[in-house]
Amino acid sequence: MEHLSIDTIKTWERFYRANFINCLSGFKSANLIGTVNKEGQPNLAIFSSVVHLGADPALIGFINRPLAAAPHTINNIEATGVYTINHINPSFVAKAHQTSAKYSVEINEFEAVGLTEQFIHPIIAPFVAESNLKFALKLVEIVPIKHNNTFFVIGEISDVIVPKELVTADGFINIDEAESMACLGLDSYYTATRMNRFGYAKAPKLI
Amino acid sequence: MEHLSIDTIKTWERFYRANFINCLSGFKSANLIGTVNKEGQPNLAIFSSVVHLGADPALIGFINRPLAAAPHTINNIEATGVYTINHINPSFVAKAHQTSAKYSVEINEFEAVGLTEQFIHPIIAPFVAESNLKFALKLVEIVPIKHNNTFFVIGEISDVIVPKELVTADGFINIDEAESMACLGLDSYYTATRMNRFGYAKAPKLI
Repeated sequence: MEHLSIDTIKTWERFYRANFINCLSGFKSANLIGTVNKEGQPNLAIFSSVVHLGADPALIGFINRPLAAAPHTINNIEATGVYTINHINPSFVAKAHQTSAKYSVEINEFEAVGLTEQFIHPIIAPFVAESNLKFALKLVEIVPIKHNNTFFVIGEISDVIVPKELVTADGFINIDEAESMACLGLDSYYTATRMNRFGYAKAPKLI
Repeated sequence: MEHLSIDTIKTWERFYRANFINCLSGFKSANLIGTVNKEGQPNLAIFSSVVHLGADPALIGFINRPLAAAPHTINNIEATGVYTINHINPSFVAKAHQTSAKYSVEINEFEAVGLTEQFIHPIIAPFVAESNLKFALKLVEIVPIKHNNTFFVIGEISDVIVPKELVTADGFINIDEAESMACLGLDSYYTATRMNRFGYAKAPKLI
């Protein structure tokens, strides 16, 4: 085991350091976020920072990078208040990764990478037709993170599209059977295999 | 595929709904956070919400549940400004899950579940000796999320303990070889298998 201080890490070349730091948080969810601007122009972008925030209300957060680096998704969400989150599956993971490229604002990433827009009335943001598990959200709040100019975007789930047979008797969803993927760092994608399910942990009662 | 509206989901039994909503964000990182209070009493708790926030500065965030449900970790971080994040491996995943039980504040979860405190001078928060990949952080900011009384806790990485042989030529860390796990919902744990590594995506140049 090697002990590295941040002073050492800061001396590293920029991309080496970014790869290294990006792996430390551990495996991440791999999702595509679908939006439209006020004119209805679709946008699709990959995010590895989608995080569960609470079940009641059903809140989900994600980190949007600084506006200079990634303006389209957050601008569209701010303009329309609506977005979709779509799990990524192996059959289209290469196309999903390609949405991380810097396309101009007038480019529709669905068309650019070859994925299919799916509109489900009355939700104005597009789902990814190819995705096996997806949901729509309404914007709740955008929290600016002042230390690095990112944004924590919070939404409330409004609709869920899920394969019924993968929802188990206690509400747990077998997303591995839906072929949902995990990701790591900036460009690596994983399938997941369940090892344990434990149930609710209780502290021993004092006698 | 089934289309479920939030109005339907809200009618579900509480635990069924919690399991369901908790699976929607996708696979999550599985980490133990180690802290001490001002008297040096250790605390250890499992978190599935650790998220990469930025590489320069090296910022990591996590969601702490409302104070009434989970006060110890956040109180200790606020009191000392220091904490450790430790990846979870299959050899101790059952013990890691057991830290999710509600232990009284005077209980040291390391002792209660059978994990080993590892102190690395001068970091006052304990690492998990059994963990193959771990790092220490200094508190940067605690952002209250008013919609559900959770907190987004932001820290800057100060030290990293990593198996040198798993860091590749471009800085990427093979955390699957470190046996880092992913988790899902409230109680399920996964190993991950790499399927793709793509590299940096570029948009086609216009001619």
